[in-house]
Formats: sequence, C-alpha cells, structure tokens
Amino acid sequence: MFVLQKMYSSEKYPSRVLQEAVEAIGSLPGVGARSALRLALNLLDRPAGNIHQFAEAIGRLADDVHYCRNCRMIADEELCPICADPARDPRTLCVVESIRDVMSIEATGQYRGVYHVLGGIISPIDGIGPSDLHIKELVDRIRQLQAADAASDIEIILALSGDVEGETTALYIYRQIEGLGVRVSTLARGLGFGDDLEYADALTLGRSLLARTPFRP
Amino acid sequence: MFVLQKMYSSEKYPSRVLQEAVEAIGSLPGVGARSALRLALNLLDRPAGNIHQFAEAIGRLADDVHYCRNCRMIADEELCPICADPARDPRTLCVVESIRDVMSIEATGQYRGVYHVLGGIISPIDGIGPSDLHIKELVDRIRQLQAADAASDIEIILALSGDVEGETTALYIYRQIEGLGVRVSTLARGLGFGDDLEYADALTLGRSLLARTPFRP
Repeated sequence: MFVLQKMYSSEKYPSRVLQEAVEAIGSLPGVGARSALRLALNLLDRPAGNIHQFAEAIGRLADDVHYCRNCRMIADEELCPICADPARDPRTLCVVESIRDVMSIEATGQYRGVYHVLGGIISPIDGIGPSDLHIKELVDRIRQLQAADAASDIEIILALSGDVEGETTALYIYRQIEGLGVRVSTLARGLGFGDDLEYADALTLGRSLLARTPFRP
Repeated sequence: MFVLQKMYSSEKYPSRVLQEAVEAIGSLPGVGARSALRLALNLLDRPAGNIHQFAEAIGRLADDVHYCRNCRMIADEELCPICADPARDPRTLCVVESIRDVMSIEATGQYRGVYHVLGGIISPIDGIGPSDLHIKELVDRIRQLQAADAASDIEIILALSGDVEGETTALYIYRQIEGLGVRVSTLARGLGFGDDLEYADALTLGRSLLARTPFRP
C-alpha cells in the first residue's frame, strides 16, 4: 500500500491538466483546495464551447479592460459610463479606494457627481505608498477643472474607509489639495440606520454624539 | 435620482468585460453574485500574464483532457496513471460514479485494483438513463478480460452511493453482468468508525446488525 500512497501524495490528481486548473482556481481568495476541485470538475463536465467562453471571459480581463482617463475606473472605452454621462456633475469628485466602492455608492442611487479611483490605499505594511496611487492624477484633474473655469466651485469628497490606512490616505490627500481652493468633505460617520444604542461601540457612539445634526421632524 | 438608479439597474457594471467575467465566475456552483465580483476584481488586479495563465488553465480543460480508454477516468495520455500502473490488479474493477470518487478511494490508500468511471448515475428526474453512462464499456471490458484469460477470477466492486439513484444504478449494472461469471461485491455499509449507537439512524443500525462480522480481538 505504501507505494500507492506515495504515488498519490506526490501526484494528487490523475491529470496534470486538471491539477493546473485546480491550482488556478484555488489561487482565488477564499477558495480552498476541495472547493477548487469541485469547481474544476464542474467546468470539466460542461461542453467545450462553454469552457472556452468561460476562459475567454477571464482572459479579456487582461486584454480588453481599459481605465477611464478621467477617474481611473474600469471602462470599455476611453471614458467610463459615469464620466461620459452629461447628467453627472464633473465638479463633484468622490475619491474612493477601488472600483468596488464606486459600485457600492452607485447602488445607493444618491450620488450625481463623478469619481476618482485611487487604485488602493496607503499601507506601508503592504509597501503601498502615495506614489502607487492616483493622487497626482487627482491634483492634475482639479487643476484642469480650475483652468477651464476659474470661478467654479469644486468639491472633493474623501470617501475612504474608517481604518488607519483610510484615515492616513485621506489626510495625505487633504495635504496635497488643501492649497487649491477646493471644498473637501468626508462621509458622515455615526450610528447606522436602525442601529441600537445599546450595541453601538463607544467610539462610534461618541463621534455620533459630537457630530449630531439638527432634528427634522 | 431615478435616472441613475435605472441606468445602474440595467447596466450593473461599469464595463461589459467585467460584467462577462463576473457572469462566467457566477455560473460556478455555490458562487453568488457578490463573490463572483470579488473574485473577478481579484483577477483584474493581477498582472496580465497571470490572468492569461489562469484562463489557459481553464481552457485546457476543454482541449487537453482525455479520458482513459480503459476506465474513462480523466487522463493526460491514452491510459490514466492507475490503468498504466503494472502494480495494480486489472482484474479487480471498482465501479464509481465520478472522478471525485476515484480520488476519494485513492486517498484511503487501501485499494490496489483499477476503476471503471460511469460518468454519472441513473437519474430519471435529470434525464440520465443507462445509455448515458459507460455501462456498455464495462461489459465490453469484462468480456475482453475473459477473452485474454478464460480461467481468471474477475471481481466487480459496485462502489456507488447509498441513495435511490445509486441503488438503482447498482441493480441495473448487476443485471447486465450477472450472467458473465464474475464476482460482484459492494461496499460494506454500517456504523462509521467512532460512531455512537445512540445517534445512529435506525436503517444504518439495523443493516449494521444484519451484516455483523466475526469479532477479532
């Protein structure tokens, strides 16, 4: 029995092709070895055309994705659909970490300005500094807007996460743009709608109290 | 606001390329829309070469996978590594539903025979009948083994699941091969090792009692 066990511990899959597919799928975050095998076998059971379609859809992420020249969001054209939309206010810029944040804000249906996607967050531990993010492009964008109309009122909304990296990044950006004469705002933080005071953490509750707003019955 | 909401409900993603990748990934079992987006954005963040490697590993599942001409298991060559291994007993055939079952049995390290992969299970609800499975190939294989050595002792182990489909399939196969003069066995069923009598279901406990084996101290 020993020989067999050895054979299958060094060569776990009956096919190298299957093994490579399992390894590729298993490289995705949160997908373990067992799930990866299950997903690979699911693909394997499909007609060849379907598998090719799947592989091509993934491959196009490398070849056919562009980034909006204005806001650096993922786009199929030179401009993303938001920047290309004349109904959006190009003088309100919401600065976010990633594409996912854009999608979250768009899902609220509450925002009519445009975005600026940083492509990450300042994180010395991960070796990501300000020059790795699209901060210079933000400054250039503000300057171009001002050059086009000197009297215009520009608002920059720093919509970054509330952790140390987010606050560090927000502060860094603020320092870069504070001399440009733009309004800078940030997301309101406080209790969530429907939240119970009893279960709120002290920091959130304290800040929520300090940032209290007029009661509108 | 209505216009924006409408725009983003009909066109949920800022890029068709991203949307197609999310849809492809979301077609995998157990991967919801949110997870699919998370996985697609993870891929998008990778270098282009890495994305291509991923896509190619998937694509090869359509192009480069062969099925062993003996046992119908996935293989890179004409024969799978198990059928090609001279140390395995080619006259003990373990009949299983899928490749995954082969891998489960191989992981036990307790089996030195070969396999026969049916490629499914008889399931009228899913429209899978006996002719969709490799049952005829099993009969042919037995006949070939007998033609090569008429005096040989051949054992067929029906290692199918214990549900209705599994039992139906096992019975069907038994009827096809009972006249061929081969030994037919099935997996022992009973209490699992370490199982508590108190929590065993009545059917398992009852069968386990009927199929009792000599005590070996």
